[in-house]
Amino acid sequence: MNEDELLGWLKRRLRTKKERDHLRDDTATLEGSGALVVTVDQQVEGVHFAPGLDARVVGRRLLAVNLSDLAASGATPRWAFLALQLPRGLDPKPLYAGLLAACRRHRVMLAGGDVSSGPALAASLTLIGQRAPGAAALSRDRARPGHALYLGGTVGESALGRALLERGARWTSGAVRLPRSLALPPPMVLAARRAVKRHLLPEPQLALGRAIAALPGAGAAIDLSDGFSRDLSRLCRESGVGARVEATALVRASPPGFDALCSRLRLDPDALRLGGGEDYVLLFTMAANTAPPGRFRCTKVGEIVRGHRIFRLDAAGRRETLAPAGWDHLLRG
Amino acid sequence: MNEDELLGWLKRRLRTKKERDHLRDDTATLEGSGALVVTVDQQVEGVHFAPGLDARVVGRRLLAVNLSDLAASGATPRWAFLALQLPRGLDPKPLYAGLLAACRRHRVMLAGGDVSSGPALAASLTLIGQRAPGAAALSRDRARPGHALYLGGTVGESALGRALLERGARWTSGAVRLPRSLALPPPMVLAARRAVKRHLLPEPQLALGRAIAALPGAGAAIDLSDGFSRDLSRLCRESGVGARVEATALVRASPPGFDALCSRLRLDPDALRLGGGEDYVLLFTMAANTAPPGRFRCTKVGEIVRGHRIFRLDAAGRRETLAPAGWDHLLRG
Repeated sequence: MNEDELLGWLKRRLRTKKERDHLRDDTATLEGSGALVVTVDQQVEGVHFAPGLDARVVGRRLLAVNLSDLAASGATPRWAFLALQLPRGLDPKPLYAGLLAACRRHRVMLAGGDVSSGPALAASLTLIGQRAPGAAALSRDRARPGHALYLGGTVGESALGRALLERGARWTSGAVRLPRSLALPPPMVLAARRAVKRHLLPEPQLALGRAIAALPGAGAAIDLSDGFSRDLSRLCRESGVGARVEATALVRASPPGFDALCSRLRLDPDALRLGGGEDYVLLFTMAANTAPPGRFRCTKVGEIVRGHRIFRLDAAGRRETLAPAGWDHLLRG
Repeated sequence: MNEDELLGWLKRRLRTKKERDHLRDDTATLEGSGALVVTVDQQVEGVHFAPGLDARVVGRRLLAVNLSDLAASGATPRWAFLALQLPRGLDPKPLYAGLLAACRRHRVMLAGGDVSSGPALAASLTLIGQRAPGAAALSRDRARPGHALYLGGTVGESALGRALLERGARWTSGAVRLPRSLALPPPMVLAARRAVKRHLLPEPQLALGRAIAALPGAGAAIDLSDGFSRDLSRLCRESGVGARVEATALVRASPPGFDALCSRLRLDPDALRLGGGEDYVLLFTMAANTAPPGRFRCTKVGEIVRGHRIFRLDAAGRRETLAPAGWDHLLRG
């Protein structure tokens, strides 16, 4: 049973539409609470990060992945609750220090939690945010045929960073160290360091989420955590639409030097863009007559179409069905 | 570093009183949210329950321990969020089924969550409740000298149930099976079965919490999860008071047959009462001229006194300092 199958089974067991609606997005809005929005996300050793990663980074990353969920709802983060499992002998202070520093930066209050021993370091964060009075709720089910499809940032770079970590890159004292064995030429060293940093410390797009939510032409939004094609298919399924993705636009939405570094490392740049995952940028749709504010440097990567098919259009005009590749959290790790 | 030391370190790093206040209780009240109250609690395989326990029971117990935290705040539960870690190959459906059934019984909506693979079954639940308009907030810091100290139920029985599980008792198809090796006489079999059930499926005292919160003479409240003496010492520390506990009253607050079964199993009944833990009943204080409603069958077990000493008074009038025994979640498991 994979993650989407489990969610499907769970939805069939729920009795009311309201209950099912809560499970549609990564966030849930609490009725009658003054537009409070809640999300939960975990970082588990050996699944989301390799054993031995600086626990400060684990703490910062834990907040970042939750903030990214809130960004896709257009809310402002307010309170966090940490449930921690600690292997015996591991000092919990660096993780708390990293989390608290990140909380301060984003004006989030660590308001409670629970701590237990456990077989591996695992942290689950519940983040509660608040939507501005009158602001529209962003969700996955508002894409309409004719909407333009936008990416809030680049895709694939985080997966490239993960690949570099698997090949010996390390985060030490706040800097990325690359192993000599990689023997990258100097121009690629910069791109490699940036990819590792992007993977470990993603920058959630909260300001973009709030800006989209304030626009009258706003459609659907999702944060890309499990891979572009998988998350796009979720957005399309919840909205009951299809999508056309332009291959060249997706390539344009890659960081400088990305394709060259991928080919040096014998990685398929398209596979990373489409299914690498952990990008933590927003994928969203807007009515054709609106556009996201220019300062966010979003890229238009396609269009929402009628039906249920999701396909990619290459430069030569060939269509190819886009299968939902990417991470499944039950099959992974 | 134990749990209380970690909490102390954490409080020293927090900058505002509001932040430190949030960490005082197991629940936090969200300002400006219409009296929403939040709590987080975990169930980790090998720590809170033995491997192989029916996952339906794990799901029910997970909700119960969180409900007990909310009970101590006087709130009504509304929404739950589940973060789950699943070992490969384990079917997640029984846990969800148990959790969902318990949610329905308590009118709680499972509104979201996250699922990941992991080395052991571990579940963290965030529970959000709502306080009735105008109802007082129950918390740990409102005990005053002269208050009477009450127990909402019995203590020690859950720990006795845990001891029986360690000696081979099993929960199968909704019933407790005791191993033949125990060779308990028939009158003790009932007490043993009840203890195992009490341990696995505690009954959180939500109605009692709400009733106390509505009384003008309400003082401090805490739910007993880590042991009577440890949780009493937390309540006293937060309130800046001491306490006198009457040994005979504590014995009276034991279920029928408890002491006999303990002695049969060569367990010290006093040690279980004082430090067995996982009782999930409320310990609370009230002004001397009030009392909890009779239908809850609470037991008065002592009095709040000036100073910081917590002592036990036996039938012969001897005083003995009560050390905070019980579970520490970082040293346990």
